[in-house]
Amino acid sequence: MSDATLPAVSPLPARPRILLGPGPSELEPRAAAALASPAIGYLDPALLAVLDETRELLRRVWATSNALTGPLWCTGTGGMEACLANLVEPGERIVVGVHGLFGGRIAEGARRLGGEVTTVESAWGTPLDVAALTEAIRHARPALVALVHAETSTGVLMSPEEMTAIGAAARDAGALLVADCVTSLGGVAVSPDAWPADACFSAGQKSLSGPTGVATVTFSERAEAKQSGRRAPPPTFNFDIALIENYWTQRAYHHTCSSNLLLALREAARVALEEGLEARFARHRANAAALAAGLEALGLELLVTPSHRLPMLTAVKVPTGVDAASIRSALLEADGIEIGVGFGPLAGKIWRIGLMGRSSRIGNVVALMAAFGARLAAAGHRCSTEEAVAAAREA
Amino acid sequence: MSDATLPAVSPLPARPRILLGPGPSELEPRAAAALASPAIGYLDPALLAVLDETRELLRRVWATSNALTGPLWCTGTGGMEACLANLVEPGERIVVGVHGLFGGRIAEGARRLGGEVTTVESAWGTPLDVAALTEAIRHARPALVALVHAETSTGVLMSPEEMTAIGAAARDAGALLVADCVTSLGGVAVSPDAWPADACFSAGQKSLSGPTGVATVTFSERAEAKQSGRRAPPPTFNFDIALIENYWTQRAYHHTCSSNLLLALREAARVALEEGLEARFARHRANAAALAAGLEALGLELLVTPSHRLPMLTAVKVPTGVDAASIRSALLEADGIEIGVGFGPLAGKIWRIGLMGRSSRIGNVVALMAAFGARLAAAGHRCSTEEAVAAAREA
Repeated sequence: MSDATLPAVSPLPARPRILLGPGPSELEPRAAAALASPAIGYLDPALLAVLDETRELLRRVWATSNALTGPLWCTGTGGMEACLANLVEPGERIVVGVHGLFGGRIAEGARRLGGEVTTVESAWGTPLDVAALTEAIRHARPALVALVHAETSTGVLMSPEEMTAIGAAARDAGALLVADCVTSLGGVAVSPDAWPADACFSAGQKSLSGPTGVATVTFSERAEAKQSGRRAPPPTFNFDIALIENYWTQRAYHHTCSSNLLLALREAARVALEEGLEARFARHRANAAALAAGLEALGLELLVTPSHRLPMLTAVKVPTGVDAASIRSALLEADGIEIGVGFGPLAGKIWRIGLMGRSSRIGNVVALMAAFGARLAAAGHRCSTEEAVAAAREA
Repeated sequence: MSDATLPAVSPLPARPRILLGPGPSELEPRAAAALASPAIGYLDPALLAVLDETRELLRRVWATSNALTGPLWCTGTGGMEACLANLVEPGERIVVGVHGLFGGRIAEGARRLGGEVTTVESAWGTPLDVAALTEAIRHARPALVALVHAETSTGVLMSPEEMTAIGAAARDAGALLVADCVTSLGGVAVSPDAWPADACFSAGQKSLSGPTGVATVTFSERAEAKQSGRRAPPPTFNFDIALIENYWTQRAYHHTCSSNLLLALREAARVALEEGLEARFARHRANAAALAAGLEALGLELLVTPSHRLPMLTAVKVPTGVDAASIRSALLEADGIEIGVGFGPLAGKIWRIGLMGRSSRIGNVVALMAAFGARLAAAGHRCSTEEAVAAAREA
């Protein structure tokens, strides 16, 4: 077969995109370089040392003492499944807080696994109602409670106090708590040990600015005990966390460890820890404040109340008469800047602007203000790009 | 937190390993370079074009007309799960041919999903007994039959005639057929349409010499119909192939497409097709023949009968008095060459030598003969390295 018969090579953009959507964020250059490393076998002592080191780095990024912490070779969706499929048993009562797309996915995932799911819903764009959720937990006395710490579909972050209240209610009811930290890990404080949450999951390409295709999970000892005491093995062989741990600690074959993704994740985790988590969180907050100021100077309204805004993902309302998708397309294809649109009840009503990990830079905020202001003005929205840039710079 | 408090960076080997184990194989340089590309969003038209192109390339590599063919962000184990979790329904009868570790895993995976599994076992190192398997299919009239095309744990390849006989028996019984092609895809002919098999899975890092962390699957129309007609959705949200297809074709969000892994897989697939599949298969056969000749010149015995040898993975018996693991370690750590050892009933009894994808080169065979012969001689096995090198070169 000659080359001439193959499909044409689809070209990549001439310039890298400015990634200000819901993820991926801009890949850390050290992580990108590590991705291109020569492959190494899954039992090579050199690889196993990197695995151990990376698991220790991840414990620090997660701020946890959980032994069962490490990388999985999947997206964040797979991380969710790893938590649910190990911890949900058929017929068990599950309470899920739902205030956006990803809470709905947890409920769907738990139902598929045979859980008897009760959802406690709040409007998209608002935080979960802690009183309603704790009441549902007291009433249902579920085996497991789950919620989304940082809702990427709306830009809502649950506060530390709310997480602790929900964690206490779950613990009082004898339930495990699962938290979706896909967008929060590496951008704001996560506290699995303090909330406490028994299983948390995140992904490489959000606030860690690592590659897509690697997730990370952390399981408490209570979660480990629940998994090992299941009536039947989990339906998943691929995500069976006991078999995965057996590879991590006993080097017993379960899957082929991806040396390329592992080396990249190590770099992303090191970069985050070298910056310092507190400094990193402060950077995300500062750039989110600049973005908010700029958007408001453009005459736009933010979706989420200030107390619950997720610094890594800002939802901004689409003004009357403007087509959300057209602005998104123009920004992407003409300006090389990616932002996201809304899902479900927010489709057509919001844009979602990410400032995650390496993408969280004032230069990106300014570049977006200039391009976004121009696109909005062209679409008939009265605004001053200069004022927006100035507001962002001064915030 | 300062850098000084972080764990020390575990160094990589100074020279890349010569990867002659059960996988990963040596990463194609074009795939390695593509891994380091800037990230691209999962709805970016530039990425979607690459996705479409890669799915077409994969159809050619799979030699199939199946529309439902594409990449998954997981290892080969995840590819197995994607096939089983979509197609097995609780209580259904499943017949699995087991002649090594990976057949056993399919049986285990199907049981976890609620299948009533009957195994038809053959000794590790021998092919499946087609008469026994077809008889079991006629007797059980299962919903699904599964087997391993290329058993990486033993180096046994099922022949085209055997695959066709099993495929016909499954079709006659109204059963779907699932085939594990993890090591075969890209190294020997696979024929999903001709066998016929309704779902096949493979992985990036074997005979395609792409990265680890990407799998590929292909589903027939019959498999699609079975999945869409399930009594209940599959227990897996992550691997629900209908939702994944919805992203592939309708661009509806299900997971974040890994642009880095996708670009690397595209390169690996293009490299395979540029070489030409027939030429690639011939190269694998020729280098396997050289390896066999060299090993026999070292006075070693191959595990598998010539008619069923897998060109990409050669199992060779450990001579009396020699410790398999010590030889493997010395080759890896002193010579920089990775080979594998045996699992289960073959633990301590065989080495597994891979010549997969880019690793399948005569220079690698010769390098292995020189190092392996020296290690064996040092362990007390009488052999001539020079004769082995000459035999490999002349084969």
